[in-house]
Amino acid sequence: MTFSVKVFTLYPEMFPGPLQYSLVGRALQDGKWLLDVINIRDFALDRHKTVDDTVCGGGPGMVMRPDVVDRALKFHYQTPPKSLIYLSPRGIPLTQERVKELAQSASLGLLCGRFEGVDQRLLEAWKFEEVSVGDYVLTGGELPAMTLIDACVRILPGIVGTAESLEEESFSQGLLEYPQYTRPRVWEGREVPHVLLQGHHEHIRRWRQAQAEELTRVRRPDLWQEYCERREKEKGSKE
Amino acid sequence: MTFSVKVFTLYPEMFPGPLQYSLVGRALQDGKWLLDVINIRDFALDRHKTVDDTVCGGGPGMVMRPDVVDRALKFHYQTPPKSLIYLSPRGIPLTQERVKELAQSASLGLLCGRFEGVDQRLLEAWKFEEVSVGDYVLTGGELPAMTLIDACVRILPGIVGTAESLEEESFSQGLLEYPQYTRPRVWEGREVPHVLLQGHHEHIRRWRQAQAEELTRVRRPDLWQEYCERREKEKGSKE
Repeated sequence: MTFSVKVFTLYPEMFPGPLQYSLVGRALQDGKWLLDVINIRDFALDRHKTVDDTVCGGGPGMVMRPDVVDRALKFHYQTPPKSLIYLSPRGIPLTQERVKELAQSASLGLLCGRFEGVDQRLLEAWKFEEVSVGDYVLTGGELPAMTLIDACVRILPGIVGTAESLEEESFSQGLLEYPQYTRPRVWEGREVPHVLLQGHHEHIRRWRQAQAEELTRVRRPDLWQEYCERREKEKGSKE
Repeated sequence: MTFSVKVFTLYPEMFPGPLQYSLVGRALQDGKWLLDVINIRDFALDRHKTVDDTVCGGGPGMVMRPDVVDRALKFHYQTPPKSLIYLSPRGIPLTQERVKELAQSASLGLLCGRFEGVDQRLLEAWKFEEVSVGDYVLTGGELPAMTLIDACVRILPGIVGTAESLEEESFSQGLLEYPQYTRPRVWEGREVPHVLLQGHHEHIRRWRQAQAEELTRVRRPDLWQEYCERREKEKGSKE
């Protein structure tokens, strides 16, 4: 079953864009995932191809019309797919855990908003899941859609070199990743930490674990608290 | 003073990519912001243009060499700029507040990691600020860099139509934004909420505030708690 994504956007020319390069682009060329980009404007009926209208109740900007987006969706779906996502700062924040679930969808539909967003009735009628890539505001949903796709595609089987790579990274244990070092051993007077050069695997593992814990504690008190609570629970259940 | 961004990357061909379209692209063409994309690989000295090497202490993947990235940075900066950012899931999460600060930088330097990331010594030597666009892992820092740029450019003076647009959006009051509606008034049996059609500005304002509060409470208990605490404090200071 191939991971396939439909993107509904007013800027189809943005795609595949950055997704055509590197691991993700190679995988696209090799047919390991499929991308279908739909221009919402093609479903506007008037001569001017209007897709938006003024805000009900007053206010600046424009809102994307429900009927136009609806026609685009209906043309591509007979029944709504299981994973239909509207990228929006109002959504539930995307996490690596959710990425793992989404990467197992057979079919992913992504709607990219522009202007002040999409009419709320459209979102309700199609039961969109609203997903946010972060607590900031962008000009549209296209970069978030690419971000979500990149996150999903890289964890598909056979994309990143080794499964081990995926196990050791940030969030996989609920911690940020430990710092990385490579050659040269001494660079501008700065040495690679001694323990990493000794070849003692258990010492290295412990050092990395301590670094990951310390970094998480300092930078992300929120993740650190969750991590501690989970660890406490696991301890409790073992006793 | 023009907002100018230098991006250090192994995939310069990804830029400007999505940033050449729409509001942000038009602003780039009009010289309202400047983009300089630097290929880190140009600063590799060997015949094979090697930029990475194996992980010290063992482990899968490759790490970007400190000396190669350092040469790229030194070529472009005599002294480190004030805002030098490494996009990484280990970073401090980007917020709309931080976006507002960064948009006022004269000069922004963005380093995009690939593979297992950049050698830690390089980050320390140049005092990089590590910024994360969200709690998920991507194939590289390029999409996060574009995300950060898009967020900053849209709030530069004169980019988005009205300043009012920026005031009413998600996070501006610490709340998610209320739902938006446009024509048609009735769509597939779904009506625009009555209050929005009555033209009573104070009623509309109150309805929107209540919607924004309810949405934030349900979807983002974390933001809701901060909002309530701030409101309590403000009340206290008024009394």
